[in-house]
Amino acid sequence: MKLTRKVKEILSWYESDNPGTKTNLARILMAGKLGGTGRMVILPVDQGFEHGPARSFGPNPAAYDPHYLFELAIDAGLNAYAAPLGMIEAGAATYAGCVPTILKVNSSNSLSTTKDQAVTGTVGDALRLGCSAIGFTIYPGSEYQFEMMEEFRELAAEAKDAGLAVVIWSYPRGPTLDKVGETALDICAYGAHMGALLGAHIIKVKPPTDAISLDAAKKTYKNHPVEVSDAAARIAHVVQACFNGRRLVVFSGGETAGADSLLDSARAIHAGGGNGSIVGRNAFQRPREEAMKLLSDMIDIYKIRA
Amino acid sequence: MKLTRKVKEILSWYESDNPGTKTNLARILMAGKLGGTGRMVILPVDQGFEHGPARSFGPNPAAYDPHYLFELAIDAGLNAYAAPLGMIEAGAATYAGCVPTILKVNSSNSLSTTKDQAVTGTVGDALRLGCSAIGFTIYPGSEYQFEMMEEFRELAAEAKDAGLAVVIWSYPRGPTLDKVGETALDICAYGAHMGALLGAHIIKVKPPTDAISLDAAKKTYKNHPVEVSDAAARIAHVVQACFNGRRLVVFSGGETAGADSLLDSARAIHAGGGNGSIVGRNAFQRPREEAMKLLSDMIDIYKIRA
Amino acid sequence: MKLTRKVKEILSWYESDNPGTKTNLARILMAGKLGGTGRMVILPVDQGFEHGPARSFGPNPAAYDPHYLFELAIDAGLNAYAAPLGMIEAGAATYAGCVPTILKVNSSNSLSTTKDQAVTGTVGDALRLGCSAIGFTIYPGSEYQFEMMEEFRELAAEAKDAGLAVVIWSYPRGPTLDKVGETALDICAYGAHMGALLGAHIIKVKPPTDAISLDAAKKTYKNHPVEVSDAAARIAHVVQACFNGRRLVVFSGGETAGADSLLDSARAIHAGGGNGSIVGRNAFQRPREEAMKLLSDMIDIYKIRA
Amino acid sequence: MKLTRKVKEILSWYESDNPGTKTNLARILMAGKLGGTGRMVILPVDQGFEHGPARSFGPNPAAYDPHYLFELAIDAGLNAYAAPLGMIEAGAATYAGCVPTILKVNSSNSLSTTKDQAVTGTVGDALRLGCSAIGFTIYPGSEYQFEMMEEFRELAAEAKDAGLAVVIWSYPRGPTLDKVGETALDICAYGAHMGALLGAHIIKVKPPTDAISLDAAKKTYKNHPVEVSDAAARIAHVVQACFNGRRLVVFSGGETAGADSLLDSARAIHAGGGNGSIVGRNAFQRPREEAMKLLSDMIDIYKIRA
Amino acid sequence: MKLTRKVKEILSWYESDNPGTKTNLARILMAGKLGGTGRMVILPVDQGFEHGPARSFGPNPAAYDPHYLFELAIDAGLNAYAAPLGMIEAGAATYAGCVPTILKVNSSNSLSTTKDQAVTGTVGDALRLGCSAIGFTIYPGSEYQFEMMEEFRELAAEAKDAGLAVVIWSYPRGPTLDKVGETALDICAYGAHMGALLGAHIIKVKPPTDAISLDAAKKTYKNHPVEVSDAAARIAHVVQACFNGRRLVVFSGGETAGADSLLDSARAIHAGGGNGSIVGRNAFQRPREEAMKLLSDMIDIYKIRA
Repeated sequence: MKLTRKVKEILSWYESDNPGTKTNLARILMAGKLGGTGRMVILPVDQGFEHGPARSFGPNPAAYDPHYLFELAIDAGLNAYAAPLGMIEAGAATYAGCVPTILKVNSSNSLSTTKDQAVTGTVGDALRLGCSAIGFTIYPGSEYQFEMMEEFRELAAEAKDAGLAVVIWSYPRGPTLDKVGETALDICAYGAHMGALLGAHIIKVKPPTDAISLDAAKKTYKNHPVEVSDAAARIAHVVQACFNGRRLVVFSGGETAGADSLLDSARAIHAGGGNGSIVGRNAFQRPREEAMKLLSDMIDIYKIRA
Repeated sequence: MKLTRKVKEILSWYESDNPGTKTNLARILMAGKLGGTGRMVILPVDQGFEHGPARSFGPNPAAYDPHYLFELAIDAGLNAYAAPLGMIEAGAATYAGCVPTILKVNSSNSLSTTKDQAVTGTVGDALRLGCSAIGFTIYPGSEYQFEMMEEFRELAAEAKDAGLAVVIWSYPRGPTLDKVGETALDICAYGAHMGALLGAHIIKVKPPTDAISLDAAKKTYKNHPVEVSDAAARIAHVVQACFNGRRLVVFSGGETAGADSLLDSARAIHAGGGNGSIVGRNAFQRPREEAMKLLSDMIDIYKIRA
Repeated sequence: MKLTRKVKEILSWYESDNPGTKTNLARILMAGKLGGTGRMVILPVDQGFEHGPARSFGPNPAAYDPHYLFELAIDAGLNAYAAPLGMIEAGAATYAGCVPTILKVNSSNSLSTTKDQAVTGTVGDALRLGCSAIGFTIYPGSEYQFEMMEEFRELAAEAKDAGLAVVIWSYPRGPTLDKVGETALDICAYGAHMGALLGAHIIKVKPPTDAISLDAAKKTYKNHPVEVSDAAARIAHVVQACFNGRRLVVFSGGETAGADSLLDSARAIHAGGGNGSIVGRNAFQRPREEAMKLLSDMIDIYKIRA
Repeated sequence: MKLTRKVKEILSWYESDNPGTKTNLARILMAGKLGGTGRMVILPVDQGFEHGPARSFGPNPAAYDPHYLFELAIDAGLNAYAAPLGMIEAGAATYAGCVPTILKVNSSNSLSTTKDQAVTGTVGDALRLGCSAIGFTIYPGSEYQFEMMEEFRELAAEAKDAGLAVVIWSYPRGPTLDKVGETALDICAYGAHMGALLGAHIIKVKPPTDAISLDAAKKTYKNHPVEVSDAAARIAHVVQACFNGRRLVVFSGGETAGADSLLDSARAIHAGGGNGSIVGRNAFQRPREEAMKLLSDMIDIYKIRA
Repeated sequence: MKLTRKVKEILSWYESDNPGTKTNLARILMAGKLGGTGRMVILPVDQGFEHGPARSFGPNPAAYDPHYLFELAIDAGLNAYAAPLGMIEAGAATYAGCVPTILKVNSSNSLSTTKDQAVTGTVGDALRLGCSAIGFTIYPGSEYQFEMMEEFRELAAEAKDAGLAVVIWSYPRGPTLDKVGETALDICAYGAHMGALLGAHIIKVKPPTDAISLDAAKKTYKNHPVEVSDAAARIAHVVQACFNGRRLVVFSGGETAGADSLLDSARAIHAGGGNGSIVGRNAFQRPREEAMKLLSDMIDIYKIRA
């Protein structure tokens, strides 16, 4: 396999990483139908932890089977499949080498009353299961944020040493943020920037709204305005916050939504210079053919040369 | 010993495990009167920790002697015997090789005011005592759930490395759950699914009732209904939540109950595709002959080909 | 030295232990005037930590000198001497080989407002000081009980690996227990049983009173009565809770008491099948000759063949 | 490169350090336009963590790019560039050997409600990235101060063993200090002294005001007066608190300020015997040419022989 | 150098220690003008941490320089110099071999609102700096006492393994003690005894007052009276609490006091059999000549044969 010029450029941004990590980044960037474009569509399946099995897989019971999910990612030509330990264990040998996998190493659940997570997987697990990366969620602003960042530091350092890539889910929440604040533009950009500062290779955030949440930031945005009413401009601001584009940033699809709205979102990500989408519920909760169609349409958007 | 086709199929589900772990899973699945059927009856004795010695063994004082319990499991032809450190230590040499043992490595007690547990055994203990597996209890929903899951992660990873199998007792409880919620169908399925996601090989839950507890889940169950009034259908839903049956799931007998009710429960587990029963108090608190009869009847139910 | 049949039988109960631990158990069981009988009298001196030096040694100032305490244990022909780090360090070379020693590795004090303890010694300390065992106190029911049990697990596992014996002081206390509850029969038996489940070789508890504390246990004791008005029967129940006698259990003397009352207590322990007494304050706070007389009388009681 | 007499003298103060650490201190002291003078100007960029990306880089968007910041430090002829993990990773290979770097290994953020920080980098990171030093912030007086000091101890010991230099940011705050107290002269000197006692090589504090905060200290300052109305005298008092000048101490620029005010501050630091300035926002938030001019003017002040 | 009979006797009390530790104890006991007498005067300088630099060194600004303090200890012919990490680092090479040093490895400060300390130095630091001992403060009775004792256990065990001596500062305080209680006779003796039980070689306490604080202890002191009105008798009681004199015990000078009062205190320590004084503020806050005179007078008192 020969890397494209675009992927070579992206790898050059990760100038401090060892060849092992560059190899795994290349594996993700070269996989699937978007291979080589610098854009990605990734399938994450941690909803079983977050919301329970019925809310996750009830709408499309075939997805109860871990093999279904591997095959969905493979057949749709995605860049990677991300899931917690048990789900990767249940298919890693059958689908060895078929799609890059990301071991999600921490998780929360709907029974929790705190904004914390449990670390449920290790770098050793990722290695023995043939994964290309680990994935870790932080909640900047939570009472547990510093512990989470320190867990991230330990796991990320170990992963980099072992030649793996590191993906961070950065979801601000906590006592200083109301519901609007969690996805406000300044907060999304702040969360993404912290992911970059923490040393993640790929940063996953929610698409930002046009709100500005922190009082201290309002003056800045007034003096140095961002075109907040335009979705692509907001994406571009988040990309800017990721070392001016020197780090890969992908955006989640959020709650189940209509296909049109999802494709609109992908168009904005594409136009704003984002590196792609992470699509979970919107993929695996749809009947397979419908999901394949949606992912194919999304991929077509990302295939357009910028 | 030659593995049956059924056991070979079950082992194939554990595709990421090393031959050591597969060997120990096979030992448990091939042991006793149900050996080779893919169904199991297991004797657990941690009531001494949970309820104290008199409440556990007063009704049948012969059971104060750890050797009695080993012999009960062996003579009844069960698949495995599970107990805390001291109890295994007290018989592991005498009954070496006679029955697969599961070292229960954490325990709570009736004097506690919190929903936590102490880790009281190690993988090293399990190995030096010739155990086939470790057993660990989590309380999803408890204030201590994340610590418990992280303890599980560490012990399970170490156990898998050492070629042991890992059994999880998943008992949801905590501030978001009332008494009914702890055994509600959605919660049992959720607890079982988390056990699977955490990477357990065998999952133990309580038999689910027909209640649905989480508001967020009610809509799902309305839109994608499960036949909750039928015990076998409820079992089948829990099996589905365990990676669509790719993980072994066994059900506890609960508080001391009449033999008929226990056998009815076993029939539902059998019909719903569950992998068997864990029977503690209902076995060792009965006089030996009565216990032997009950276990034999239960085994006969599980012997029926599905 | 040739082991007696009784000691051989006792060692056979510890079937999972390595020869090193069996050797140290044998050292304790074969030492002193009760050597070979399966009964023991042990001198523990941790009162300096628990109550301070003046309350401990003021009544008999000779006992301020650690050498006095070693010599008391040796000259009285006891089975072992138990004390915290500093006190063992201060005499371990002078009296090397003269009496088995037990390093008490955790301690509390009268200035504390919590029911916790500090771990103040290690297995490495026990080994370099030539000790035969480590001693550890747990407070089942305390808010710190799970941490204490986990500290015990780590130290006990390390001790067993190193061929040492492990003695547990099991003293229930905490928010679910009132003063009467702490020494109630059901609670003493429960505490002793937890010591056995945790893997201790020798269990030390307080002599039980005729109270039953836990509501949940009252029904059991009503349906399966223990002759609670008889001290020997109460001891026998605690022995039963220690794996039906498969674990050594010794009883403390409690607060300073008259010699007659102490000897009565020893008679009950003897009759009930307990393995002996741990006598601290009642030994070292008496003038030496008086203490020697008391210990001698106590030993004579335990010498009687059951 | 030949060390100047001044740098040799400074290195002689670090008499307990290994040649590796002395080498890295020399690298910082000999770098840039102030090389060899014993004075330093350092560029720190951790505002992205502390205040978010827009408030940090919005005023001068070129600074979103980590390469811009490296080049600013290099082209202005500074002694060192300090930043968190991700930012150093993003340029360490491109600018290898061009400017000494300081890996800032802990960080807080504006979403936090506590006066704590997360450790986000390691000594291993500093070594693999070619850094000359690690940087660590403590908040003396915070509820987390002892944990922070202990984290510092561990990281500093590891850094010294590895031949790195250690820079401490000492920013007193917490329940015993009001806003005025945080920069009061006694508190600045106290914070600087603690940095020295903790074993830091270079101490960074805020310029002290003329306030005295602690009641217990007022008597001392009355009996042994410091000329608090004179900025240079206040600097000299802080230098005195750093082992009478045996430790390097540099002062931050504080919030964005006019160039004149910053240069006045540098003159006072110079006159008081301080070792230089750490200038962050005042450098990277200005347009590049303006920043270059300011830094050049500041360097000219420090070049004057004392 | 040949040890005196007295020092040989003292070393014999430390019968469990390795030759390395005995060597370092001998170094301290044989150093300075009191070398060989079994008495000691030690200079401790941790006031900079505890009270800040100005309150510590303002009265005698020469003492801001760590070399001044080394020279004071050396020129006054003291047995040892104790200080935190940074201060030892700043002079350890210049004064290598000139005076035994004690690395104070934990410290608190005046900005703290809790009765805890930070561990700020390690055994590795003590070894690389050529120290003869580590020094550690515990606050028996504090909410943090058990953590402090456990930190002490770890550091002391490591120090003993490495052939260092271990000095404990035992300063009772916390919710069960009022201001009078902290230096009451029973509490001083209790604190000293705990230091001995924890395995310290040298115990430092405050001189006891004639108060008795704990209700539980009052009866004991009534039945077994100590001549509390006599300072030497109180010292003798503390010595008794240190294993009847088998452990070295030294007394602090307390707050700045007149020279006469200090010399009176030394006379009582001498008469009561204490092993000497630790004199901090009273030495380094005085002008050098005055301090030299005071220390010389104190040494003369201790030189008198008992």
